[in-house]
Amino acid sequence: MTRVAIVGATGYTGSELLDILIGHPRVAVTSLTAKLDAPVPVGTELPRFAGRVDLPCTPLDPDEVCEKADVVFLSLPHGVSMAYAETFLSRGKKVIDLSADFRFGDRALYERWYGIPHRAAGRLGEAVYGLPELHEAEIRGTSLVANPGCYPTGAILAVAPLLARGAAGAEGIVIDSKSGVTGAGRRASLALSFGECHESFRAYKIGSHQHTPEIEAELGRVAGRPVTVLFAPHLVPMNRGILTTAYLAPRSAISTDDLLDLYREFYAAAPFVRVMDGGALPDTKNVLGLNYCDLSVVADERAGRIVAVSAIDNLVKGAAGQAVQNMNLVCGFPQTDGLV
Amino acid sequence: MTRVAIVGATGYTGSELLDILIGHPRVAVTSLTAKLDAPVPVGTELPRFAGRVDLPCTPLDPDEVCEKADVVFLSLPHGVSMAYAETFLSRGKKVIDLSADFRFGDRALYERWYGIPHRAAGRLGEAVYGLPELHEAEIRGTSLVANPGCYPTGAILAVAPLLARGAAGAEGIVIDSKSGVTGAGRRASLALSFGECHESFRAYKIGSHQHTPEIEAELGRVAGRPVTVLFAPHLVPMNRGILTTAYLAPRSAISTDDLLDLYREFYAAAPFVRVMDGGALPDTKNVLGLNYCDLSVVADERAGRIVAVSAIDNLVKGAAGQAVQNMNLVCGFPQTDGLV
Amino acid sequence: MTRVAIVGATGYTGSELLDILIGHPRVAVTSLTAKLDAPVPVGTELPRFAGRVDLPCTPLDPDEVCEKADVVFLSLPHGVSMAYAETFLSRGKKVIDLSADFRFGDRALYERWYGIPHRAAGRLGEAVYGLPELHEAEIRGTSLVANPGCYPTGAILAVAPLLARGAAGAEGIVIDSKSGVTGAGRRASLALSFGECHESFRAYKIGSHQHTPEIEAELGRVAGRPVTVLFAPHLVPMNRGILTTAYLAPRSAISTDDLLDLYREFYAAAPFVRVMDGGALPDTKNVLGLNYCDLSVVADERAGRIVAVSAIDNLVKGAAGQAVQNMNLVCGFPQTDGLV
Amino acid sequence: MTRVAIVGATGYTGSELLDILIGHPRVAVTSLTAKLDAPVPVGTELPRFAGRVDLPCTPLDPDEVCEKADVVFLSLPHGVSMAYAETFLSRGKKVIDLSADFRFGDRALYERWYGIPHRAAGRLGEAVYGLPELHEAEIRGTSLVANPGCYPTGAILAVAPLLARGAAGAEGIVIDSKSGVTGAGRRASLALSFGECHESFRAYKIGSHQHTPEIEAELGRVAGRPVTVLFAPHLVPMNRGILTTAYLAPRSAISTDDLLDLYREFYAAAPFVRVMDGGALPDTKNVLGLNYCDLSVVADERAGRIVAVSAIDNLVKGAAGQAVQNMNLVCGFPQTDGLV
Repeated sequence: MTRVAIVGATGYTGSELLDILIGHPRVAVTSLTAKLDAPVPVGTELPRFAGRVDLPCTPLDPDEVCEKADVVFLSLPHGVSMAYAETFLSRGKKVIDLSADFRFGDRALYERWYGIPHRAAGRLGEAVYGLPELHEAEIRGTSLVANPGCYPTGAILAVAPLLARGAAGAEGIVIDSKSGVTGAGRRASLALSFGECHESFRAYKIGSHQHTPEIEAELGRVAGRPVTVLFAPHLVPMNRGILTTAYLAPRSAISTDDLLDLYREFYAAAPFVRVMDGGALPDTKNVLGLNYCDLSVVADERAGRIVAVSAIDNLVKGAAGQAVQNMNLVCGFPQTDGLV
Repeated sequence: MTRVAIVGATGYTGSELLDILIGHPRVAVTSLTAKLDAPVPVGTELPRFAGRVDLPCTPLDPDEVCEKADVVFLSLPHGVSMAYAETFLSRGKKVIDLSADFRFGDRALYERWYGIPHRAAGRLGEAVYGLPELHEAEIRGTSLVANPGCYPTGAILAVAPLLARGAAGAEGIVIDSKSGVTGAGRRASLALSFGECHESFRAYKIGSHQHTPEIEAELGRVAGRPVTVLFAPHLVPMNRGILTTAYLAPRSAISTDDLLDLYREFYAAAPFVRVMDGGALPDTKNVLGLNYCDLSVVADERAGRIVAVSAIDNLVKGAAGQAVQNMNLVCGFPQTDGLV
Repeated sequence: MTRVAIVGATGYTGSELLDILIGHPRVAVTSLTAKLDAPVPVGTELPRFAGRVDLPCTPLDPDEVCEKADVVFLSLPHGVSMAYAETFLSRGKKVIDLSADFRFGDRALYERWYGIPHRAAGRLGEAVYGLPELHEAEIRGTSLVANPGCYPTGAILAVAPLLARGAAGAEGIVIDSKSGVTGAGRRASLALSFGECHESFRAYKIGSHQHTPEIEAELGRVAGRPVTVLFAPHLVPMNRGILTTAYLAPRSAISTDDLLDLYREFYAAAPFVRVMDGGALPDTKNVLGLNYCDLSVVADERAGRIVAVSAIDNLVKGAAGQAVQNMNLVCGFPQTDGLV
Repeated sequence: MTRVAIVGATGYTGSELLDILIGHPRVAVTSLTAKLDAPVPVGTELPRFAGRVDLPCTPLDPDEVCEKADVVFLSLPHGVSMAYAETFLSRGKKVIDLSADFRFGDRALYERWYGIPHRAAGRLGEAVYGLPELHEAEIRGTSLVANPGCYPTGAILAVAPLLARGAAGAEGIVIDSKSGVTGAGRRASLALSFGECHESFRAYKIGSHQHTPEIEAELGRVAGRPVTVLFAPHLVPMNRGILTTAYLAPRSAISTDDLLDLYREFYAAAPFVRVMDGGALPDTKNVLGLNYCDLSVVADERAGRIVAVSAIDNLVKGAAGQAVQNMNLVCGFPQTDGLV
């Protein structure tokens, strides 16, 4: 069994990782850390795991983690991850980083959108963007995976086939995403309190969300030239799920059926993408707790627009599930192990 | 006191009408009808009104309604409204129709999108589209108001200033709307059941929703030429509220501040439109139970897009509240009576 | 117009007070205060009121409040209210205190359950417990109303008729209450965050909630002897509403119909209590936004239990609405003014 | 691999069964049936399973099911199950029936509470009540398991230790349960629609719910004499989860700590019961998607009551998970297979 550690186990993403990994046939979770003063049984912090996981949750001690684990999942805030990644990599560990710290090859881009200096820029070159549907081979060969953001996962998977195959233009792309509240993390915040979020729907950070450059970088790679998108995130009163509706201009007349065929062909080898049958549209409910990305695409000839829609569970395909998918590739396991 | 009837009082819209009208200083609700076999106390059908409204809810008898009321609200499904509207109009009643039956001057357009023949097309000429922010004077002079759809209300108010002032082009407009579940009406339906809607977010009828031509007709009037929009509605797991995010291309460079000024000027005389301060974005929670439409607009120069956002309560500004606003105009009352 | 101030206007209760009072025919809201560094337009703190209320929200300056208002609503945490109440009373203001500070005649009881010393105990004698259904005459004659807690309002109204008329014994009473999340106040808290509360149902503070002695004191007064209850509160994933299910032992055989008659007779003069028709049970939805308490009672002869059920909106009859009802009595207005 | 069929696969319980069984290491799902006119891919009816399950969902043909499966799960309405159970048993199949049809040894009791005649009463004697915590040995030896109701599972597990050990009296037991909406099944119903259930909390069928005699029968067996309970169910605006709060009278003074010890001892061998640490109370969120029953118990000496609290996922431990647990026992598999 490969020994794995979760650094930052008590957030929503860390907790979801634990839930997935304890059912994984090829790994043993050997270390859980969190921002704590002293070790506590994991069931004390996360009652969901009482009786299921017999490990303490401990303050982070990198030496101890190195002793106990071969693969380290970093489920930490951006800016915090970068330092620890270096520590673990230098000791030969494989690192799956769920923060944004290694998602950009371009250090300046990171620093501009995240507003902090990058302190481990020497590793940017070896980090691989962990979207297996587009980077499977590279992920297999790396020790440092930059696990994609939740919004970018849904947005890129929805739009990539259109740009890769030239069915839509790269200009004027609009990406309107709607996320459940766990996407904002597990923390005390008035804005995230039940009373403020329930029976509320709102947009935020239109055009200025930090996931924008991540989406643009990947779509630019796919399109073979720079892509600028208008990205508008919204908050949905539900726990989990992101639905993304993307609007593009077709390059030439194309039918919905032809678009669906194009998507099926593009994702033929991707075990976690499901292109829906014509007419059916994705629903976050259908991917709840699953690592799938459900996709559909509609050609509206009347309005001259292609509309691509994706649904993911933000904590699974948008975070922990995809991280495990990446671990499977990095470790040479079957890609779907522990995920189906 | 002006005597008013609600025909179709037990749906979500009819019930909201009753809630508003019992607090209105110039009217008395004198008749409530619903699809029933025999009269029942309104509190039996709608326990919310027990002890507050001392009226029976009766099967619809047009003669009786004519005797009892001067103004008739039709809160009926489309296709059903048209016949009754004729009956009430021919007896000199003022009619506020909340269905889609009189929203189109163009009968063929109605028949194409709604799939049924229009049986009261003779009245289409005198019907006025009841969006007071754009048609106040005409509404004051009519006896037949076609109360706008919930989605169109939010979409048109969000986009109209940009087209009226030429700040955005009329091509390639994308309107992405998100509605609470009561927008689909009060009825037994598996798709609308709690188990299917809760913790679910989904798109539906992309490019084919029947509110599309209504939005296009009004925006075309405002723009002074035909407008085609891509309209994509979504279902939000909440009871009330519609948030609309509209994407347009600017005609020339313009700042967010200038756009906000343009909106404030455009709606200076509109008592129920609130243009938010720069930076703040609408939230459906802020208009819950209120007749306001909250608006904001963002110029994203980087992506070359203008994003206009509106929030309404679908049952108030999107239906019953706007219907009362229209009644106020039709009856010569102050526009805000009973609504603030 | 009577001039009123809301001290603590930005919490859920203060905001609900404002919503009710701006529609009240006999008062003018003249002062709003909150924990702020400098005055801001109320719409900045509470966007719901933008364009509706033309007042700043200011840091609390008691002198200024005294100049501007005749009646002062204190919507402050317990322990904070007591000091300000004294200030306003000594200057001849009428005070409606929504905290727990003046709900107990017995200072020691307060100090035991709330764990802090009482600093205005000299006023306990003149404070009247503001449950109009039981204390209307005394409320009319006081200047200091202790507005009841949300749970006690629902619990006492459900149980009082049974004890007052001797239909149930005073021993072994169980009160199982379920409250929406706004009952816990408007604040940043992990436990109250959407991610923790949504799709969650839990009990808390069983037998140790600070509303227990408040319920017992009032029920004891009604029964004419000490009453001890087991009070178990629960948190419901909704914004508003408290449903209380109370279990008692009948003194002698009695039917559901006779119990319903007893309730109707007991509350015959109470404008805000609705005893439901036989068979129907309260639903928090029916009192959403209303000042009503809906009641029903069931005699289960098989199990030898009487079950009384009440539903209120915790922010209305459980807080702000009842506070206005009390103000109406204190000021000599019709009891229902501004509330129907 | 043991071959299993799910008869009634498209309801919430059937769908949950499928989700669990496809991850079970010792079985293969070979047949799925539902009320259909013709076979359809399971992903058409239940998009969640698209790409995960390569089976059609077919109209029920008992012969075909017999050919394909060794174990049959009946996820059918009560009254429908009984006939099919007979069919499958007579052909030597093992049957796990999730309806109420075989839960009562006493046919008259069934007929009185369910209001229909029993048409397979000859099998009542061999049916075993499938609560493994109380009937493990009997379940191992039967071919017909009557899987318990969701409410009874939570209620019986909460109360049984107190009666079995004589810590509480068998008189005057009150069981106040709160269930998520999926407990009412997957169907079109106005009362179960989102608009009616969301932001609503209500009691129903107080003292008359059909799960009452099921709870009483089991608790009577545990106590060794007849037990009558007051059972009051409530509907919570969430999808999954039942929290049960049970109130009993202690036989003699006992502390919370001693009660917790008693519970831990009573359930020492039960792999799916988790007695929480002192002070912590169950939350349905902690068992979401899990087969655990979380328990706590509080002695309130002041009020003279013992309060036992349980949380389960109504679709897992309350239905499908427990059914698989029973299958494991019936088939001689480890009890926890496929469930942890």
